[in-house]
Amino acid sequence: MTVDLHNYVATVENFPEIGVDFRDISPLMGDGLAYKQAIDSIADFAKNLDVDLVAGPESRGFIVGSPLAYALNIGFIPARKGGKLPREAERASYTLEYGGENILEIHKDAIKPGQRVLIVDDLLATGGTINATREIIEKLGGVVAGVAFIIELEALHGRDKIMQAGDVPFLTLMTY
Amino acid sequence: MTVDLHNYVATVENFPEIGVDFRDISPLMGDGLAYKQAIDSIADFAKNLDVDLVAGPESRGFIVGSPLAYALNIGFIPARKGGKLPREAERASYTLEYGGENILEIHKDAIKPGQRVLIVDDLLATGGTINATREIIEKLGGVVAGVAFIIELEALHGRDKIMQAGDVPFLTLMTY
Repeated sequence: MTVDLHNYVATVENFPEIGVDFRDISPLMGDGLAYKQAIDSIADFAKNLDVDLVAGPESRGFIVGSPLAYALNIGFIPARKGGKLPREAERASYTLEYGGENILEIHKDAIKPGQRVLIVDDLLATGGTINATREIIEKLGGVVAGVAFIIELEALHGRDKIMQAGDVPFLTLMTY
Repeated sequence: MTVDLHNYVATVENFPEIGVDFRDISPLMGDGLAYKQAIDSIADFAKNLDVDLVAGPESRGFIVGSPLAYALNIGFIPARKGGKLPREAERASYTLEYGGENILEIHKDAIKPGQRVLIVDDLLATGGTINATREIIEKLGGVVAGVAFIIELEALHGRDKIMQAGDVPFLTLMTY
């Protein structure tokens, strides 16, 4: 039995800004059946990609990436916001969707050269966080094996931005 | 085959303050075998507790709680820092280990009255975040089915603080 994941997305009008429809997947994560179905769909995609590690940006990327790593029997790497990691880290900056700039960091010992990393997040908007995560992975000698999202906001062309940084296998479970 | 999880903890001296040894479980999360072993140990503990949902505080609690929810075939509820949730939320404040105060929030529709919630986090220090998470769950009519951690810092007496708020089944995989 499968469920329609769209029924587990709460649309919040005018959040975080007027005129923006925020797609909130809390109901999906809060439902055992929908959550498992979403993670297993990404795991199926990952099975052909020879993935060594899963990476996800702070913090909703953790809620997608860590169960996926568990399902695939591999490790999870958090890409954390600047200044939170206790040990030596590689970093990259990105522009925020609603203005400003942020930094993401990954511990330098988290990825060995040549390891294949799947990047995941709950939602693909402009692609800024994903490309920053990719930049760090590649600085550390890793290879981006693919990218996967539960939701893609097509109007923001994040997929194009990701592919401009180099073609990678791509999966999204729902588009809006 | 099991591994000694202690070998996957990086101890960082004088972080985040002079005189503090920070216990970093990034190496554990980054290793598929150690990560799975840790999550499965908590899942074994949860099996006798009739758990409906797993909750974890932002953000390392997500990396423990969401694979656990996946393993148990139930939903995951993030307890987020104040102001990040898009819909109506219940909240509680707590005192930070190194000074100051923070707020945690859970969506009001995340827990139905009577649902049994297991609270997990990577590390138990003073217990402030856990008791704030518990306070929110109980305000929403939920029942705390148990608490579990990968690491407990015994000198900070977090376990006592949790039990003062009411006895609950307790698991920690490592103590320092």
